[in-house]
Amino acid sequence: MNSLELFAVESLPEVHPGDDLGDLISSKANLKAADVLVVAQKVVSKSEGKLRDLATVVASEEATRIAGQLINQPDPRLVQVILDESVRVIRSQRVLITQTRHGFVCANSGVDQSNVGEPDVVTLLPDDPDASALRIRERIRYRTGVDVGVIVSDTFGRPWRLGIVNVALGVAGLPALIDLRGTPDDAGRDMHATVLAVADDLASAAGLVMRKTARAPVVVIRGLELQGDGHGRDLVRPAAEDLFR
Amino acid sequence: MNSLELFAVESLPEVHPGDDLGDLISSKANLKAADVLVVAQKVVSKSEGKLRDLATVVASEEATRIAGQLINQPDPRLVQVILDESVRVIRSQRVLITQTRHGFVCANSGVDQSNVGEPDVVTLLPDDPDASALRIRERIRYRTGVDVGVIVSDTFGRPWRLGIVNVALGVAGLPALIDLRGTPDDAGRDMHATVLAVADDLASAAGLVMRKTARAPVVVIRGLELQGDGHGRDLVRPAAEDLFR
Repeated sequence: MNSLELFAVESLPEVHPGDDLGDLISSKANLKAADVLVVAQKVVSKSEGKLRDLATVVASEEATRIAGQLINQPDPRLVQVILDESVRVIRSQRVLITQTRHGFVCANSGVDQSNVGEPDVVTLLPDDPDASALRIRERIRYRTGVDVGVIVSDTFGRPWRLGIVNVALGVAGLPALIDLRGTPDDAGRDMHATVLAVADDLASAAGLVMRKTARAPVVVIRGLELQGDGHGRDLVRPAAEDLFR
Repeated sequence: MNSLELFAVESLPEVHPGDDLGDLISSKANLKAADVLVVAQKVVSKSEGKLRDLATVVASEEATRIAGQLINQPDPRLVQVILDESVRVIRSQRVLITQTRHGFVCANSGVDQSNVGEPDVVTLLPDDPDASALRIRERIRYRTGVDVGVIVSDTFGRPWRLGIVNVALGVAGLPALIDLRGTPDDAGRDMHATVLAVADDLASAAGLVMRKTARAPVVVIRGLELQGDGHGRDLVRPAAEDLFR
């Protein structure tokens, strides 16, 4: 694996609830076995109808109070949706950082206002991003006969480092982690601490091509030789094992 | 920027203290303007002589005590070197997580035993990874006339997510962050929260090609059109602004 190629799937139409992403991608891309497709969460959520219209939301007192503490003074109904999508609030001063029911720790529970078209409609994360990735993978295999890996990605901030990077929420048909523990390095040493978050590295790489305003929500990564099968949930560190807390 | 190409620089020799990485890379790669080179910290540290021989280190009581708390029971002299390279210990139970004088929060202050050749010699992070990146960039320009961007990278673990990813420690000749705040998205909305850690996404992408045992410490990323100039230190979130703490 000494070279890699990444390209955007071109001319994808705007995605609406009920659209089949596997069909759309199959019709626009010439895929090869072992390609990895990285699909932006937003189009997955749209296709799955994971949308909420703020016009139907009533903000609680807590949501209104938190909205007043945040730097961008969001609509309290948006804060309500974010709280509805969370199991734990990590921080609610200046920015709102939560843990979602999937276990992801991120800003605003992954709820997003931008690029939806209708101003008061927001996207929620898929219920089960691993299942979303698997559905796309299986539909592409059904339509084209080609076995691809699929990652559903979103951009997350990180503690201690500035800026957002693209990460893997859902994974199908490729490993999420590559465990090199016990593999000798060049000098014959045991690389005991090395578990590579390969699905996150792939999501990051695709993020370079996606660039949020470029309307390139699906990126193909070609040239990998990954063995195995993993899940986006493999990348979530159990709270009890969070060595940085 | 709808496609990208990544490839390893082949046939690089083993790097020794005093070797000029810019010269070595210039002689092995056919570079083009706007290429981004991602160079693994370990070869940068070797070329700069940032090595310590544990035979010359005496472990303090504190280092010996911490070594006994760690899951892999390291040599107390190695722990001493890690403490010498740190300004703050974040965690010393099971694993040792520190803040380095550069501000990076990572395991073992970035001190690394593997792939060095001599078993008791460890690599330290470069004193100033931005300066390291700039020296490589300037030497390549001097030798080839080509303007490339350079990232010095290392693999870091992350809170809340399992596995390590490649990140940018030093940057020269490209931006570290791309600030999209105020840029309207497809729907004309202000994407107020979006600052992309592009140098980290680039490091991650290169990490896919580097694969630690593959002896590919230098990766070329071709096809970007990045404007501007930044530094690896731009990616370090000041402690006072760490919204996740």
